[in-house]
Amino acid sequence: MTATSRHVVLRRHPTGRLSPDDFELVERPFAPLAAGQFRTRNRFLSLDAGFRQWMNAGSSDNYLAEMPLGEPVQSIVLGEVIESRHADWPEGRWVLARTAWESHSVTDGSDLATPVEPLPGVPLEEHLGALGPAGMTAYFGLFAVGRLVPGDRVLVSAAAGGVGSLVGQLARIAGCRPVGIAGGERKCRFLVEQLGYAAAVDHRAHGDLAAAIAAACPEGVDLYFDNVGGRVLDAALANLREGARVVLCGMVSQYEGEAAPIHRLWQLVTKRAEARGFMFSDFLPQFAEAAERLGRWVQEGRLSTPFHVTEGLENAPRAFCEMLAGANLGKAIVRL
Amino acid sequence: MTATSRHVVLRRHPTGRLSPDDFELVERPFAPLAAGQFRTRNRFLSLDAGFRQWMNAGSSDNYLAEMPLGEPVQSIVLGEVIESRHADWPEGRWVLARTAWESHSVTDGSDLATPVEPLPGVPLEEHLGALGPAGMTAYFGLFAVGRLVPGDRVLVSAAAGGVGSLVGQLARIAGCRPVGIAGGERKCRFLVEQLGYAAAVDHRAHGDLAAAIAAACPEGVDLYFDNVGGRVLDAALANLREGARVVLCGMVSQYEGEAAPIHRLWQLVTKRAEARGFMFSDFLPQFAEAAERLGRWVQEGRLSTPFHVTEGLENAPRAFCEMLAGANLGKAIVRL
Repeated sequence: MTATSRHVVLRRHPTGRLSPDDFELVERPFAPLAAGQFRTRNRFLSLDAGFRQWMNAGSSDNYLAEMPLGEPVQSIVLGEVIESRHADWPEGRWVLARTAWESHSVTDGSDLATPVEPLPGVPLEEHLGALGPAGMTAYFGLFAVGRLVPGDRVLVSAAAGGVGSLVGQLARIAGCRPVGIAGGERKCRFLVEQLGYAAAVDHRAHGDLAAAIAAACPEGVDLYFDNVGGRVLDAALANLREGARVVLCGMVSQYEGEAAPIHRLWQLVTKRAEARGFMFSDFLPQFAEAAERLGRWVQEGRLSTPFHVTEGLENAPRAFCEMLAGANLGKAIVRL
Repeated sequence: MTATSRHVVLRRHPTGRLSPDDFELVERPFAPLAAGQFRTRNRFLSLDAGFRQWMNAGSSDNYLAEMPLGEPVQSIVLGEVIESRHADWPEGRWVLARTAWESHSVTDGSDLATPVEPLPGVPLEEHLGALGPAGMTAYFGLFAVGRLVPGDRVLVSAAAGGVGSLVGQLARIAGCRPVGIAGGERKCRFLVEQLGYAAAVDHRAHGDLAAAIAAACPEGVDLYFDNVGGRVLDAALANLREGARVVLCGMVSQYEGEAAPIHRLWQLVTKRAEARGFMFSDFLPQFAEAAERLGRWVQEGRLSTPFHVTEGLENAPRAFCEMLAGANLGKAIVRL
């Protein structure tokens, strides 16, 4: 019997809203390893909205190349090495890497591969949450890009999402009282009751979102952590304080077509404020130090990732579409 | 005979496009000086587009308060002390200060007042150009906010204007080959023939401005110095290189109504770029050092301000309106 792996491949480039029909599940026999390669059995897939853009045709200017049709869908994945021709990646090692929606991956370790040491008392999947890309994104966004200072008035969009749910907790740890923006009453309750947000703004409930933010942030905003772009970003710009930092982490509103345009960029001039985009991978050399701090906070019980878990590789396309539609609380992952 | 001064006051808050009829020339008797005050006889007014916004009703959130009706129009002014009850500001001293469109000003020196030492061989008005707010804006925008590095691909909007005409020269001095954007063939010729720009893009001549910029900047843009906002800014965003800095200096397209909104802010994320607003006055503690360097370059003949001079206080309103309409080459000033 030949061993096989299962892969979710991109069947066509989506036009407009992504659909599970844009994907297809295929089965392939194990390819033999070349020298320097290793094979993982994957345990968890991380669903990250940012990957949506590379599914589009002609997206190659955006950091990664356009995902090729018929190939497995790129993703951050947590797996265990089960076969190796690479001395640094022996069998039995856990690894976080950018591979794909697939049961098994073959890689040479060059694409963001990081060894994972399971921490006593910490669920393995936390390495896709607070200890993974979401945690790194929240950490470097707040502290490196945003240069958070205790007392800063912090505002976060998509605050109930994978990154936003960690940003709020980290801002608390750093001595701030963050305000979160999310869509719907259920998410807003979640922000305040579960994630340590001091207040929540429901962007669906307010026609004048800028005024609603002003009511929740009467002193204005020193650090705005933006995960969505478009209308929410524009409303936040109206509430900046002098010298504010706008941390541009992602623009989920942009991935499936034209987002609402920005009318208030002018506020950056009058408030002598800055907006800066980043990707967590920009900070690779500092990952180890960040991981140590995040790991300590997790072990101390001060930081934990709320997960939205979907079971089964075959359900990854549906789970990804639901995440883009804003159906989830917390970090979306797929357990294989 | 009582001595009198002449003042241009704001007669009404403009609605939409500014008109000379929004102003009025009045004559007033000299008020006696209080202790700590001094009186200047003004020689030059600096016309700066940024002041346009404070003429609007309800503009008070924007750095300065709304200009009050019936009061002289605020402006950066170069004058000579002719009467003083302030030990630091003796008669005969030249001073640059934020006072108003008026023949004589009374001030206590607290509002951005800086003593001016005329330089041998340098026209006095250069202290409103390369050695004044325009020069400081270009200098700190490029070097402090934009962190210019020799070899950076520099793009500048309103490149034929008061600030832009200096940005291009400073970028040259710093070892870069700047590309300028301006409206109309005459300005574009001026950029290349007079100001040291390596190439010029006429924003009026191109429907697809992003593509026109790409043609002039085939390797993209490391530092974009924006003076206008709106459509031009949006087109520049399409051409950023990885790690680019967008220096937001002013948004003249915004002052007289709604500017074109920004659709490409997303580029800041994919290019890990930043946009930062500033005002030259943020850098007050570093003025002396900047002035020394700018003064040296002026005396060496490597930097000079192209002036558009209007004669007579009574013509300041018309000159200001023409500047906003983009009629000028170079830095607009009024000689009294």
